[in-house]
Parts: sequence; C-alpha cells; structure tokens
Amino acid sequence: MALKQVILIRADLKLPKGKMAAQAAHASVEATLRSDKEKVKEWRNNGQGKIALKVADRNELYKYNQLAKDAGLTTALITDAGRTVIAPGTETCMAIGPDDEDKIDGITSELKLM
Amino acid sequence: MALKQVILIRADLKLPKGKMAAQAAHASVEATLRSDKEKVKEWRNNGQGKIALKVADRNELYKYNQLAKDAGLTTALITDAGRTVIAPGTETCMAIGPDDEDKIDGITSELKLM
Repeated sequence: MALKQVILIRADLKLPKGKMAAQAAHASVEATLRSDKEKVKEWRNNGQGKIALKVADRNELYKYNQLAKDAGLTTALITDAGRTVIAPGTETCMAIGPDDEDKIDGITSELKLM
Repeated sequence: MALKQVILIRADLKLPKGKMAAQAAHASVEATLRSDKEKVKEWRNNGQGKIALKVADRNELYKYNQLAKDAGLTTALITDAGRTVIAPGTETCMAIGPDDEDKIDGITSELKLM
C-alpha cells in the first residue's frame, strides 16, 4: 500500500508564497500528528510523499474535508490566526492523511496541482 | 518560553508555489517528528507558530543548518526526490525547531520573510 498526504489550498486567497508554505506546513504537521503512528512511520520511511492541490474557495475546502472524513480519512483544516496577511479566522488549507494513495485519489483526483 | 519553528527556503531555485509548499511541509513535519515530544505538545497547544524565511542558495542553507546544530537545535534539511520540477538530490529547504523563539531568532534574525 503506497501512502501519501495531500494538502488542499484555497486559490481564491492568493496567499503570498511564503505564507502559503507556512500554512501548508501547519496543515501537514497537524494531520500527521493526528494520524495513526504506524502509518506515519511507514510513510516517513518511504519518502513522506505529499503534494499540494488547489481548491477554489472556502466552500470547496469544506466539501473535501467532509468527503475525506466520510471516507474515514484523517484531516486537519487550518484556520489562520490572521496576525499578518489575512483576516483572523480565515480557513486557508487542509491536509488529508498520510493514508492509502488510492483512497485519497478517490476523493481528490479531480483537483489540479497548486 | 515562546516556541516557534522556522522554515528556511532557497530563493535561487524559484520553486513554483505549490512545490514550495510541499517541500516546506516536508521539512516542517520532519523537524517536528525529530523534536522533543513535550516541546512539540506545548508548541501545538499554543498555535504551532511557524514562519517561512528565505536563504539565498545551497551554501546559505548549509550554513544555517550548521549554526542551528551548533546551538543544539533540531533541524531537518530536505533533499527533493526530483521527480518533477527540479533535479534529483537538490536541497530545497530546512526547518528548525519547534524551539525557544529567542534561541532561534539568535540564528535566523537577519533572514527575510519568503
């Protein structure tokens, strides 16, 4: 079973690249820490594959969060503290997994690379 | 003691933003998993603060990696598998911490935001 993690980022916020990197890292770390330890270990031993995909807006972010949860996948949706670039409480991105690549692809395969 | 993590990203590679986000997440997760569990717990409970900074090139990346190690900080330097945008084995970024904000600032305070 190949494992991966996907990070879904809102395209409509047009986040500066450094801000986007930090938000994506936040989602990635949080989903990892919430995931099954054995799964994380296997994923880490195999190169910790992950990819950043774009969602259109807040509604799409919530849609995919729900779809992933319904499929029994671990997710972490990130709300920015908003000290700098964007308004406090803005949902910026989320991560799914690490989990079975096929299972994740079943939900996110239509999304394009960020 | 306020805790934070910093992610240092090579500016010279001009990574596409999605690629940069995934590489930064990789560094962030790896440094987190290598760090003291109690420190990670405290950091996570306090908003998991992190910031992306830019380094000029490979040499500067290695320089800061060494400075951080010499200061007893946990680091994770990431080499890309190179399946997509950049050559295999390219060092893209690194993360330091989470650790004491003052201690990290003592090393990276001259670096600008990515």
